[in-house]
Amino acid sequence: MPNLIAVDWGTSSLRGARLDGEGRVLEEKSAPLGILNVPNGDFAGVFASLFSEWMKPAGSVCLISGMAGSRQGWAEAPYVACPAGPEDLKRHLHWIEPGRIALMPGLSIEQGEVPDVMRGEEVQIFGAMRLAGLTDGLFVLPGTHSKWATVQGGRVTGFRTYMTGEFYGVLGRHSILARTLDAEAPLDEAMFGRGVTRAGEGKGLLHDAFGVRALALFDRLSPAQSASYLSGLLIGEELRTQELTAGREVIVIGAPALTERYALALDRSGVRVRRFGAEATWAGMRAVLA
Amino acid sequence: MPNLIAVDWGTSSLRGARLDGEGRVLEEKSAPLGILNVPNGDFAGVFASLFSEWMKPAGSVCLISGMAGSRQGWAEAPYVACPAGPEDLKRHLHWIEPGRIALMPGLSIEQGEVPDVMRGEEVQIFGAMRLAGLTDGLFVLPGTHSKWATVQGGRVTGFRTYMTGEFYGVLGRHSILARTLDAEAPLDEAMFGRGVTRAGEGKGLLHDAFGVRALALFDRLSPAQSASYLSGLLIGEELRTQELTAGREVIVIGAPALTERYALALDRSGVRVRRFGAEATWAGMRAVLA
Repeated sequence: MPNLIAVDWGTSSLRGARLDGEGRVLEEKSAPLGILNVPNGDFAGVFASLFSEWMKPAGSVCLISGMAGSRQGWAEAPYVACPAGPEDLKRHLHWIEPGRIALMPGLSIEQGEVPDVMRGEEVQIFGAMRLAGLTDGLFVLPGTHSKWATVQGGRVTGFRTYMTGEFYGVLGRHSILARTLDAEAPLDEAMFGRGVTRAGEGKGLLHDAFGVRALALFDRLSPAQSASYLSGLLIGEELRTQELTAGREVIVIGAPALTERYALALDRSGVRVRRFGAEATWAGMRAVLA
Repeated sequence: MPNLIAVDWGTSSLRGARLDGEGRVLEEKSAPLGILNVPNGDFAGVFASLFSEWMKPAGSVCLISGMAGSRQGWAEAPYVACPAGPEDLKRHLHWIEPGRIALMPGLSIEQGEVPDVMRGEEVQIFGAMRLAGLTDGLFVLPGTHSKWATVQGGRVTGFRTYMTGEFYGVLGRHSILARTLDAEAPLDEAMFGRGVTRAGEGKGLLHDAFGVRALALFDRLSPAQSASYLSGLLIGEELRTQELTAGREVIVIGAPALTERYALALDRSGVRVRRFGAEATWAGMRAVLA
């Protein structure tokens, strides 16, 4: 196996890792140079400044996932339609320098008359599959735009995006809820759980969100509690539309502060949770190159 | 019946009407002097400057509904708990000048562990009841915070608030959807209908909202179409949680541009719609004073 330089190049930042032949991380680096912050659109220059040292050994290969492969990125690596596995991504790599530097495509799917897309998360899914030793399962990637993906036979067969994190941000900052909500407060598990339960009752997010306001109006939620309750409402709403049965296993991939909340919410339904972090990205890159 | 000066004093603006003994509107006026725009909090001064002429005839009475009766308003007229009818509002008027100028209380209700409130809409409901000749029915008041209210025996027995209009505003202005959405575009009925249908499929607003983004990404929705589709998703989501059966009648109260959308959406479910506008407010004031 060649030395692999794995880069997750997102909208606001990028992270890179140098992996040995067995996929072990030898070195990591990150920079606030997401695709929106690349000076003069000089992606090649930013890449060289960060990774030319790592690329020196003969036979080094770099795979880049995330928004760098979007229309607004370095070059467009078109979406691959589901079902798709690591071998499909490999076949559709968009080579910047043949055999040396490639952009990973994202995944797309049609559901009813509406498409859905992911870009970057598919690598994390394939990595978590490998780390967990699974070829089938339900995978959740919480975030600004959370993804729920079904994997069968080692390929992503279906997925859905939820604007959970972004709703939390815009409601907490720009709606009437902002007046009585401290979005930076630490998690209040009891209030978070109340939100999850409330969302599960199915009255709908448009109504439940106003409940945050009404509870604050009657001094029954403090600003810190309001943030946790709203977070519970939103994650609970996301969970409400999944087919989750007690005893089922769900793989949750992401930053600990987020996966913790999903684990808390899923645990209430008796769902078993396995969590993975950044290591899933690097394992996924290695899986694609294999 | 005394001469009645009816004032709907809201957050960003106010409207007033001078009514004769039969409740006919003799004169109307409006001003951008909502409770957030009252100079130095001088509510009495603003009131005098706008309405002292109208109040001159002996026996004139002024009722003021809306946010002027909230904690941030002229004075607080505490919420009256449901079930409540016009006679309950009359009993709980908060008199600024006894027998001359009064603030109307709003309504509150407890549902599960979460309260809900309205302030101003209750007057419109009682007015529409009177205009429609109904003592029972389902009433909808679309807006920033839409209200759905059940009336039985002339009293509001239950209601729920939905942040439909506000979600439209914050998503269209502050979320990723803002990049490809023209919030000021005129209604595209077909796209609006597609959004209503999609919401009815019950995949959830967090997912459906991302569909606006994905459809735009694949050039299947123009910015103008995106606005109508998102509006349909939101109003459709509001309708999804109502118990609506074909042939049922719903009273929709509000500005024509909004009630038109609700009529379009409700019509798809075979629901019969009757629409009322500003006249419902004035008729409601008269009903309370009766």
